[in-house]
Amino acid sequence: MFEVFSTPPSDRFFEDYTEGATYVCGSFTVTEDEIIQFASLYDPQMMHVDRDLAAKGPFGGIIASGWHTVVRTMRLLVENFLPHNGLAAPGIDELRWPQPVRPGDILTVQATVHQARRSRTKPDRGLVHTLLEVLNQNGDVVMTMKPMNFVRVRNPAA
Amino acid sequence: MFEVFSTPPSDRFFEDYTEGATYVCGSFTVTEDEIIQFASLYDPQMMHVDRDLAAKGPFGGIIASGWHTVVRTMRLLVENFLPHNGLAAPGIDELRWPQPVRPGDILTVQATVHQARRSRTKPDRGLVHTLLEVLNQNGDVVMTMKPMNFVRVRNPAA
Repeated sequence: MFEVFSTPPSDRFFEDYTEGATYVCGSFTVTEDEIIQFASLYDPQMMHVDRDLAAKGPFGGIIASGWHTVVRTMRLLVENFLPHNGLAAPGIDELRWPQPVRPGDILTVQATVHQARRSRTKPDRGLVHTLLEVLNQNGDVVMTMKPMNFVRVRNPAA
Repeated sequence: MFEVFSTPPSDRFFEDYTEGATYVCGSFTVTEDEIIQFASLYDPQMMHVDRDLAAKGPFGGIIASGWHTVVRTMRLLVENFLPHNGLAAPGIDELRWPQPVRPGDILTVQATVHQARRSRTKPDRGLVHTLLEVLNQNGDVVMTMKPMNFVRVRNPAA
């Protein structure tokens, strides 16, 4: 089953992330126009921007840039998963796109906390390791990502 | 020293990627307005979108979303490094943001081919593992990324 945070992102701290818990972060869809517009700016490969060439290519039509899926997912993480307390993320440990995203797909983001550990050197924060999974309307996993995030501790003295 | 491709992206194949070679992919800069605009859409954390809160935060001012640096880098890879032959990328093995990107920073992208191996199961392609490094005008590394890309083989029978 899925967990629900007891605190809003504006009052969310390290203590609120439960190892092993999975949180649903929301859903989104992308239209073909949005796919082409995003990719024209940032990832203008033919399978993302050219309807005719994409139709003749290995996917038989336009597919979304993997980065488009990433940034739309990121928006949901900021709205529904990450705390709004202003620490940066050091990076991502693995990112995979096992299936293509096609126009009109309805994508759902879920986040499982794999590890949440207090920092040894900075007592005001902890490091949260998460497995993100993005599924389409058929239940196919279209993206997985393993981000790390620094999160402030509510009670550093505890 | 840096290598230069002998073929344009439209006629670039697996055989053109030399293990150990480093290719300069180009440079870009981001303005504060662009940083805020991108992050407002995709990563609306205060350090990326709110000048006043960012000034009081750990970075002392607006910094770019790490994803903004990724997608601007991606654009240069499509223009100058990847072949235009329409195979998808399976994913990224590691992504790090060791230093913040600030408005006006001039960022240079370089790509080192770590491994280039023919596919055992699909003779028409190979898998290229790359280390991308993005450096600012002071020589600080602001991003590293390890993408994998499938690339078509020019002479599958060879």
